[in-house]
Amino acid sequence: MHSMSAPPDIAILGPGLLGGSVALAARANQCAGIVHLWARREAAVEQVRSLGIADLASTDLAEVVQGSTLIILATPVGIMPDLVTRLLELDLANGTLITDLGSVKGSVVRSIDPLLQARPDLCFVGSHPMAGKELTGIEHASADLFQGAACVITPGATSTPASTAIVEEFWQALGCRTLRMDADEHDRAVAKVSHLPHLAASLVAASSLGQDPAIGEVAGAGLRDTTRVAAGAPPMWAEILLENREALTPALADLAGRLERARALIDAGDREGLVQLLAEAKDLRDAL
Amino acid sequence: MHSMSAPPDIAILGPGLLGGSVALAARANQCAGIVHLWARREAAVEQVRSLGIADLASTDLAEVVQGSTLIILATPVGIMPDLVTRLLELDLANGTLITDLGSVKGSVVRSIDPLLQARPDLCFVGSHPMAGKELTGIEHASADLFQGAACVITPGATSTPASTAIVEEFWQALGCRTLRMDADEHDRAVAKVSHLPHLAASLVAASSLGQDPAIGEVAGAGLRDTTRVAAGAPPMWAEILLENREALTPALADLAGRLERARALIDAGDREGLVQLLAEAKDLRDAL
Repeated sequence: MHSMSAPPDIAILGPGLLGGSVALAARANQCAGIVHLWARREAAVEQVRSLGIADLASTDLAEVVQGSTLIILATPVGIMPDLVTRLLELDLANGTLITDLGSVKGSVVRSIDPLLQARPDLCFVGSHPMAGKELTGIEHASADLFQGAACVITPGATSTPASTAIVEEFWQALGCRTLRMDADEHDRAVAKVSHLPHLAASLVAASSLGQDPAIGEVAGAGLRDTTRVAAGAPPMWAEILLENREALTPALADLAGRLERARALIDAGDREGLVQLLAEAKDLRDAL
Repeated sequence: MHSMSAPPDIAILGPGLLGGSVALAARANQCAGIVHLWARREAAVEQVRSLGIADLASTDLAEVVQGSTLIILATPVGIMPDLVTRLLELDLANGTLITDLGSVKGSVVRSIDPLLQARPDLCFVGSHPMAGKELTGIEHASADLFQGAACVITPGATSTPASTAIVEEFWQALGCRTLRMDADEHDRAVAKVSHLPHLAASLVAASSLGQDPAIGEVAGAGLRDTTRVAAGAPPMWAEILLENREALTPALADLAGRLERARALIDAGDREGLVQLLAEAKDLRDAL
């Protein structure tokens, strides 16, 4: 079943921007056999059908996972444990792999791994493709969303070397650079490089424009770029920030401390200190 | 001298990215007669000559401003008062206009206006084109840098309606949308839409990557965009932030307060409050 040669038959659970883009990218890169897509609502299934991006789209979970060798959880993170519980009630083929697209990994692994004790033949291998858009919804899905993106693979207690390799190869075939990390290490890293910048962008947008949105007329590309990600979907991001609270809290404290020190330098008129602060940041940004 | 019909003969003082781009844009848009450029250092003059972007380039200020009807201060803000003092020792034509490209306006107007009391026929009209790049130096100058950018015009005590109109038309001819503002109103606006985001971008870069730059490997477009402006030139930005300290300080206090409130929402697991915070920021960003 864990063959390295034949592309997996995939079932994508969740009809959002990411799920839809996996379907399109898997076809475009010929790295899946059949592509099935599950959605909770019939309207979403209709949309998938009308876009023609899957071989089968249905609200019937059993029908969707039938014959799949790789099941991809593409729902919000909070729903995943329930979804896996429902999967375990179905007649999953021996050795079926499960992966996900969640933005946090520790809480996902800790909730899913225990569920899989009932089926030791199944493997869960966490994935987090670092790709997205401010626009949500499958209508904005695209086959090249993952091209050149980093995808973090977080093997856990139920991952085998072979299952990890299959998931890794799948993402590589979709255009990603893959990196392996421990789930908690992943969460600390994305707290810093994704969740912190997202919240900061939202706070800067509010601080810049909250009192008088009309001054946006004066804004240049700087404000636009710095706040771009603040246009992301609020419920989705609130969930991500809260799910990763443990890793995010120290990162926010670090940012608050830096802001305090910058204010002190400016209050003191300390040009040299301020140049040094900006130069260190520039070096880090230039190396990115 | 304040003719609305003939394009001004311009003298650009300062051979940086902005000064060079004004020279290129003025020629490309045929909105200047002669284009002269002054630099302090002979090496910079040689560079301007080799790039061929001005009719005359020299370290001799008298030679450069000879025959100019519009003098454009394109140096760091701190140098401008000295430069104007030197200009007043020269044989400037009656009615010569002076403008600048400075990122702050209050301190510029307050230092230059009193100097001009000696020559009531001269007019100073502040300008701030909201355009730039992370790259500095005239070698990165481009004729389309100002295309579509906002340019704030800050008429002051020595500006006449006619001189203000000429400066405004000049920037419009270079491709800018012009807006008139009081100098202090301008400084409060750019503190919010430019200086605050710049400092925040630097702090986020340091907070995200300072401890372990290698986690940049995991970063997506979000971190790249949020921190893009942090690649700007540290000495220039330190000067801007300190020059606009009075307007920047309350903006930084506002950001620190928002960061504190966001941390409290996350600590409390207040999903509804966090969604609301993110939704308000999204609305402001979407309207930008």
